[in-house]
Amino acid sequence: MIEPLFSDTLRVVNVGLEVFADSIDAAGGAVQRTDWRPPAAGNSEIGAALASLVNLAAMERANGSAFSAYLNAQPVLEGIGTARHDVPGMGERMILHAGPPVAWERMCGPMQGAVTGAILLEGWAEDPDGARALAAGGEIVFEPNHHHACVGPMAGVTSPSMPVWTVRDSEHGHATYCNLNEGLGKVLRMGAYDPEVLKRLRWMERVLAPTLKAALENHGGLSLKPLMAQALHMGDEVHNRNVAASSLLLRALLPALLETGAPQARIAETVRFISGNDHFFLNLSMAACKAMLDAAHGVPGSSMVTAMARNGVEFGIRVSGTGDQWFTAPAPRVHGLFFAGYSVDDAAPDLGDSAITETAGIGGFAMAASPAIVKFVGGSAADALGATSEMRHITLGRNPELTLPVLDFQGTPAGIDVRKCVDAGIAPVINTGIAHRQAGVGQIGAGVTRAPLACMEQAVAALARRFRDGK
Amino acid sequence: MIEPLFSDTLRVVNVGLEVFADSIDAAGGAVQRTDWRPPAAGNSEIGAALASLVNLAAMERANGSAFSAYLNAQPVLEGIGTARHDVPGMGERMILHAGPPVAWERMCGPMQGAVTGAILLEGWAEDPDGARALAAGGEIVFEPNHHHACVGPMAGVTSPSMPVWTVRDSEHGHATYCNLNEGLGKVLRMGAYDPEVLKRLRWMERVLAPTLKAALENHGGLSLKPLMAQALHMGDEVHNRNVAASSLLLRALLPALLETGAPQARIAETVRFISGNDHFFLNLSMAACKAMLDAAHGVPGSSMVTAMARNGVEFGIRVSGTGDQWFTAPAPRVHGLFFAGYSVDDAAPDLGDSAITETAGIGGFAMAASPAIVKFVGGSAADALGATSEMRHITLGRNPELTLPVLDFQGTPAGIDVRKCVDAGIAPVINTGIAHRQAGVGQIGAGVTRAPLACMEQAVAALARRFRDGK
Repeated sequence: MIEPLFSDTLRVVNVGLEVFADSIDAAGGAVQRTDWRPPAAGNSEIGAALASLVNLAAMERANGSAFSAYLNAQPVLEGIGTARHDVPGMGERMILHAGPPVAWERMCGPMQGAVTGAILLEGWAEDPDGARALAAGGEIVFEPNHHHACVGPMAGVTSPSMPVWTVRDSEHGHATYCNLNEGLGKVLRMGAYDPEVLKRLRWMERVLAPTLKAALENHGGLSLKPLMAQALHMGDEVHNRNVAASSLLLRALLPALLETGAPQARIAETVRFISGNDHFFLNLSMAACKAMLDAAHGVPGSSMVTAMARNGVEFGIRVSGTGDQWFTAPAPRVHGLFFAGYSVDDAAPDLGDSAITETAGIGGFAMAASPAIVKFVGGSAADALGATSEMRHITLGRNPELTLPVLDFQGTPAGIDVRKCVDAGIAPVINTGIAHRQAGVGQIGAGVTRAPLACMEQAVAALARRFRDGK
Repeated sequence: MIEPLFSDTLRVVNVGLEVFADSIDAAGGAVQRTDWRPPAAGNSEIGAALASLVNLAAMERANGSAFSAYLNAQPVLEGIGTARHDVPGMGERMILHAGPPVAWERMCGPMQGAVTGAILLEGWAEDPDGARALAAGGEIVFEPNHHHACVGPMAGVTSPSMPVWTVRDSEHGHATYCNLNEGLGKVLRMGAYDPEVLKRLRWMERVLAPTLKAALENHGGLSLKPLMAQALHMGDEVHNRNVAASSLLLRALLPALLETGAPQARIAETVRFISGNDHFFLNLSMAACKAMLDAAHGVPGSSMVTAMARNGVEFGIRVSGTGDQWFTAPAPRVHGLFFAGYSVDDAAPDLGDSAITETAGIGGFAMAASPAIVKFVGGSAADALGATSEMRHITLGRNPELTLPVLDFQGTPAGIDVRKCVDAGIAPVINTGIAHRQAGVGQIGAGVTRAPLACMEQAVAALARRFRDGK
């Protein structure tokens, strides 16, 4: 039986160590190399946990249910409120931040900078030194946005007086919140807190928010998913490229804005601010994604990721079937394009709640819709297409309402399954802004990074324990 | 020497008639078929004319000069005028139309419909019958838009009272004109002329044009090429898809519009009209393309196409080196997507000056930027990419200011060379709207068509005669 194997040239498919293929090559045999890697990168404990979760009927059912809830969610922009009055559980001396929980002492530079700015904005201290002393003094409660139905880009700092978008999932009824986007460069969310930054934030509170609030009251609820879908057809990935979405939002609200009866000068200021900020829609995109994913959260037995968020020190994920638990790993560095004079050595590690967009299937997952993003985050158009293709391997399905023209209107891959990530060794791709690692500087670039697979491995282990324990 | 040829399996590359390949196939030989066709589709007279123009140093120089002028042109939106006061050579009882010259009797249904509407709009007749009698009576002068530095989409009818965009090429100084876009469906340019159509045109003259004119006076000149370049990065091909360009135009003019001091209600009406018309930018795109191509027109010895235009009966082209001569052929039918209840049998042949966009390297030539256009004109995303790739074979170069993200920011192919079209047998691709063949109905669809190669063949023959005669 072994004879025919050697009667012709040996032809081999090699799975695993490259060294086997090399020796066949050296002996003149034909060898096809695969890029197969063992699940869980060979970690036998995680491998066993993963094996216990594969083809588990209860988990497939739970994932079907979580994924359907995500697909059926209909995020609607309802209005504008303030963190103090609207964000659930917001305290009077509380500051919310991006990512999983982190104490003041451990916060990265830009997050400490943004907290310093928020304390000055609230008038709790007179100067930056006073603000830092107050923050270190234990009098202020720091909690993650995600513990309060909220999200925030980069440092994600949300303090009581800040205006917030109110988005409601009209299908399931829950609301989500996000503050308003300040623009690029020297801004609070990137860790800057000088007087120019605070002045802009006060103007946003005094002029921008009430003007937009009145426009929204005139307009009524604005469905966000169709607007995001149209932006995907206009070259946005609706995370780091929002130029179309921001334009469409302004266009949609304009007639209602003009009919508010607000003074023409105030309308002109509002319009000029939004027109001058191609990222204005980002914070709404994030609130919409959070609303879609909160719909899928808390389904017992589901291995679907419902949040990815970074505090600049740790990267954390939450999974539908494991409730409010965070699975964390060190936040990775971000490679990308840096503004003149800066490099990766100046960069804070990956930061912000904005990876909620990738969790919902847009951003890096929808990069095929947005070849132009590579001018902002680096890479080539082929990389953009490749990112979307790769994400299909780790997702539960596609979103037929968020389609990608260049892929003949296939839905974007969505519903990250921690099992698939660990099994394939493929980490979710994330487009992101890059802040300077020191407080007070601001944005220095944008790039692409990956979620750490260690988070997904912990989630697999936790899910396996729950199933084993019959929970 | 012949022996080795037959010592192994016969392997053949077949160039030309398929039947040779078939017989080799039948005999068991390996045959590689090419899609080579003889130049000029085998017409020996045109073939000889073409041969006389290949590698002609004077023609290469002329084309270099024409193409540079096209690239250097900087179309700037200067303001809004009226056809009567601003369009050069416009007469008091003159109506301009799309495409090459055509008499009233030979006009297609939608063009007769649009002329009927324009006569009613001008108050030259009381009712449609009276308008048609007047048009047939010889009292009105009909001339092509292109004879008056003007362009118009579909029927392209421009009558004295109509407001027109004024675009100036700031590099070379000449101006071009186009009327304002009415929207989709039942509109004058598609041949409709009922009271609703005329009411809209009167509102555009009374409210829209003066309001925008005041905004432009506030704003100052608006450079159109950067706006078009940005729209190409946002999924427009800036002929049949203008949703990004229209949004960007509105966004750019808004602050100036709000500071005109015009009554808020009038501003709101204007904004609502533009917001409700994703094609609003089309007429500006056309005027900008005409300005870029007029810069390249009239270079002796150049074989570059400077206009493609259709009157619904004939398709006509003009070439830089042959002055104001038209080379015409019957207008082709358009295949595409039809609105419910209509088919290709209801369609007027290819119509309008809007192929000026393809002549300038956008529209069908830039379809790679606009995979979403296939939902409007038919086909798949691969077809959109393929169209751009194919057009590289018939163009003089690429436009580095109008880039295509999905092709890693290559410039769009531009500068159609009639020699290359005839040599390769490749006709320029055109995205277009489709009007009902009868007057009074309006738009019934959109699709893709090709310029007739017969136009390019005539131009090749005319250029060869000029070179032969030493002109």
